[in-house]
Amino acid sequence: MQTIISSKTKTVIIGPDRPFTIIGERINPTGRKLLAAEMAAGDFSRVESDTIAQIAAGAHILDINAGIPLADEPEIMAQAIKLVQSLTDAPVCIDSSMVAALQRGLEVAQGKALVNSVTGEDERLEAVLPLVKKYGAAVIGISHDETGISEDPEVRFLAAKKIVERAMDHGIPREDVIIDPLVMPVGAVRYGGQQVFSILRRVREELGVNSTCGASNISFGLPNREALNMAFLAMAISNGLTSAITNPIKPELKQTILAADVMMGNDENCLEWIQANRQPSESGAGEGRSRRTRRRRERQAK
Amino acid sequence: MQTIISSKTKTVIIGPDRPFTIIGERINPTGRKLLAAEMAAGDFSRVESDTIAQIAAGAHILDINAGIPLADEPEIMAQAIKLVQSLTDAPVCIDSSMVAALQRGLEVAQGKALVNSVTGEDERLEAVLPLVKKYGAAVIGISHDETGISEDPEVRFLAAKKIVERAMDHGIPREDVIIDPLVMPVGAVRYGGQQVFSILRRVREELGVNSTCGASNISFGLPNREALNMAFLAMAISNGLTSAITNPIKPELKQTILAADVMMGNDENCLEWIQANRQPSESGAGEGRSRRTRRRRERQAK
Repeated sequence: MQTIISSKTKTVIIGPDRPFTIIGERINPTGRKLLAAEMAAGDFSRVESDTIAQIAAGAHILDINAGIPLADEPEIMAQAIKLVQSLTDAPVCIDSSMVAALQRGLEVAQGKALVNSVTGEDERLEAVLPLVKKYGAAVIGISHDETGISEDPEVRFLAAKKIVERAMDHGIPREDVIIDPLVMPVGAVRYGGQQVFSILRRVREELGVNSTCGASNISFGLPNREALNMAFLAMAISNGLTSAITNPIKPELKQTILAADVMMGNDENCLEWIQANRQPSESGAGEGRSRRTRRRRERQAK
Repeated sequence: MQTIISSKTKTVIIGPDRPFTIIGERINPTGRKLLAAEMAAGDFSRVESDTIAQIAAGAHILDINAGIPLADEPEIMAQAIKLVQSLTDAPVCIDSSMVAALQRGLEVAQGKALVNSVTGEDERLEAVLPLVKKYGAAVIGISHDETGISEDPEVRFLAAKKIVERAMDHGIPREDVIIDPLVMPVGAVRYGGQQVFSILRRVREELGVNSTCGASNISFGLPNREALNMAFLAMAISNGLTSAITNPIKPELKQTILAADVMMGNDENCLEWIQANRQPSESGAGEGRSRRTRRRRERQAK
């Protein structure tokens, strides 16, 4: 179960036996007024700095959204993708609810892009899947259909199943569909966390495909959101989540992902963990112990 | 699936639909030379302060271990239990590898204690289970047998199954057995985390009993152990872990447990979470947002 996403020169493999894949969420004007105004005016300086900062923080793929009201979304999408792929070799995730913007993005993106997203609604499936097939892309399938977002995990699972089956009907291989189980805030939906864990297990076991989510929605409306997001992400990973659209610049979140990789056996010899905790700026509370362990390991290596 | 543990005046219910149960691990002279020397000399002042601090930090049950080489373990166990139960109404977990110490502990403990522990070895089962039955206690079953600790989760699961079945043969109800899947360090056993998650799911689904573990062993030998322990605990809870023998005084660990309760739907209306994050001393990184959320909530409440 491997989803391969690529730029011209770099391949990212999403899968349960791989380190967790981080899709950087920052290049998105939704809720960022300044960025929206700049992008609409053709100023991409913040897109540039967000690109560099997210890659430096460990993003494997960059999500690019150009959804600015009244602006020429397809054209801004194309410009943003070209800029990002001139700055980094990371593959892109083309994020729009507008089919024309997805199409324009696919035209300019180098390599094999990820399309974000299609739902289980027939009209969306028939509009987006032919594009995904035409450009040989992969696609994120959001687990709801015409009936809206159900609180019943069975209904959400069936929407996911429908997306995978319809993609295959269009000639898209199963492994090129990544399911987003849809994260609802636990502050409003008491069993919202458990619902996601249950859908993730079934997506892995019954559909045999990868998964992603916008993790931070889980903590909407609650205090100390970072701590809730960290716990949720670790729990979701242990139930099969293989990627997330998130902000890698937050050190706690990055640390949680690295720790979860260790727990899943996907950080061989714990090398990434040890490396990350060699740098005092990243290690936090465990620095003293980290240094001692390093010295011990260095002695053993001699 | 509820395990009821009690003191004379307080009942603690361990179960998958309840907030996670914290068994405080501090009253244990193993690796604490000063505490060992004091307890051997009849000085229980540190037991007293550890009792008070752990209860204040949110421990529901207190583990009591009196394993001091060359000392009269059964007598020290009895004294420690009597002291602890004079200071708090928390139930106790009687922790010894010496049957005589378990017996002496059971004689003096008020309420329904938890016995820590029995393994799947025939000799241990036949020595410990009759005591558990006689005193109407509950017991922690550690998932290994005569063959030692297997890296094969199937073998460890079968040891757990054997313990549950043997307990029932002795007239101990299934719900009074709590399985410890045995946590091995991921630094040495690459899939040690995944093994535990898999055993926990089967213990829940196939044996229908509760679970516990000594969580910190997972990070042995690695840097920044706290962050690894936090991720592990959240992941284990989402795979069915219902209690842990751990140190509640560490705020990050307590925070992770509360966050996991929220994610499992076991913190109704997120009240415990909101309460804990009203106190700046407990909230850590999210304080600013926490205060803002509080103000917003207070306004809404008016």
